[in-house]
Amino acid sequence: MGDGACLGVVVGRCRGMAATSFSFEIGTRGKGTIEITDRVAEGVAGSAIRTGTVTVFVRHTSASLVIMENADPSARRDLEEYFERLVPEDSRWFTHTIEGPDDMPSHIRMALTRTSEVIPVVGGRMVLGTWQGIFLFEHRRAPHRRQVVCVVAGE
Amino acid sequence: MGDGACLGVVVGRCRGMAATSFSFEIGTRGKGTIEITDRVAEGVAGSAIRTGTVTVFVRHTSASLVIMENADPSARRDLEEYFERLVPEDSRWFTHTIEGPDDMPSHIRMALTRTSEVIPVVGGRMVLGTWQGIFLFEHRRAPHRRQVVCVVAGE
Amino acid sequence: MGDGACLGVVVGRCRGMAATSFSFEIGTRGKGTIEITDRVAEGVAGSAIRTGTVTVFVRHTSASLVIMENADPSARRDLEEYFERLVPEDSRWFTHTIEGPDDMPSHIRMALTRTSEVIPVVGGRMVLGTWQGIFLFEHRRAPHRRQVVCVVAGE
Repeated sequence: MGDGACLGVVVGRCRGMAATSFSFEIGTRGKGTIEITDRVAEGVAGSAIRTGTVTVFVRHTSASLVIMENADPSARRDLEEYFERLVPEDSRWFTHTIEGPDDMPSHIRMALTRTSEVIPVVGGRMVLGTWQGIFLFEHRRAPHRRQVVCVVAGE
Repeated sequence: MGDGACLGVVVGRCRGMAATSFSFEIGTRGKGTIEITDRVAEGVAGSAIRTGTVTVFVRHTSASLVIMENADPSARRDLEEYFERLVPEDSRWFTHTIEGPDDMPSHIRMALTRTSEVIPVVGGRMVLGTWQGIFLFEHRRAPHRRQVVCVVAGE
Repeated sequence: MGDGACLGVVVGRCRGMAATSFSFEIGTRGKGTIEITDRVAEGVAGSAIRTGTVTVFVRHTSASLVIMENADPSARRDLEEYFERLVPEDSRWFTHTIEGPDDMPSHIRMALTRTSEVIPVVGGRMVLGTWQGIFLFEHRRAPHRRQVVCVVAGE
């Protein structure tokens, strides 16, 4: 009996495919990166899926995702500082400024990074490299509650 | 007989998993962002998939995708203006200029945003946040017809 | 009886869904883009999946992915030069410089491009546009061995 084998009459490759979703909230303390790798890993482990993918999705336009170096915090501080300089708050030509000087830069920094990230799952675990962590990137100055929705799909 | 039902004795996770694709074309009027959320949502609804993901993919290297604030058009105008400044057309060192001054900037702006975006589907609907819309980002000056291919996969 | 086994007659959408993974290594010669489209296409063909997606994932924080114009090499050279200018090595405020001046820029260039890319598979083939190629983007000066993991999922 091979992988996903079926007794009786079975049409096609009727294997044990499934898709499950989970979600969590992250409270941020204003601008910065917060590691969420463990939260995603728990959901992957709970799904019992061995081979497939986990999709991580942030439900906001002023917060985003990055996969980043997770060992030396100085790398993340430099990344955050880089985005302060690449998309400065004091750009005078911004018109979308209702919510303050960090309003428009937050949308642009989100667009320059990622809203969804898809990580392969092999042997029941994400195949993240040694130095890869999954981070929520908060772009607003004020603390926010951010919703992350994940789907694990596979067999 | 419900969705993905099985006759006889079924054990394990032999659920109603499926993957379906759909595609559509968008006519652009030159540079700018065009919302495609409704087009994607229709395809998701038609797929009858309850839990899974929808992958949105643009088949071009001078147009891309962004998930962006969908309420106030000024946010999108500022985003578009930002990319005009971040990747200016008059960069004299560009060598790939066969199709005009907007040729190379269009490829770079595409690379800085997204070609694929994956959105979780839960309860038969995309879990987009309140202010999230899916936008095609046209980077060429001239109108183009752009192809978007989507896959809904799940159960 | 393995995972996902079925007894009896199965109808409905209990279709031939499957998820398979494959991986490969790319030896880089320092900074630059290397096309990996054929490697991904081979794995997709070998999976026998007709409709679904292929997820391409790079297991590193100083190399990334881009989908880019694959016909004229000058477009890629300009892209590479653009990133040299957008994230210059001689930014004096970088603190994460243990591995040299290309250390921190490599992480930022990675964050500005992509770690995962998801391409629809329709009719057993990736639906890449005419000019779209998948490229590994090496950001370090020194040659490296880079691991790419892919998952094909669908039916």
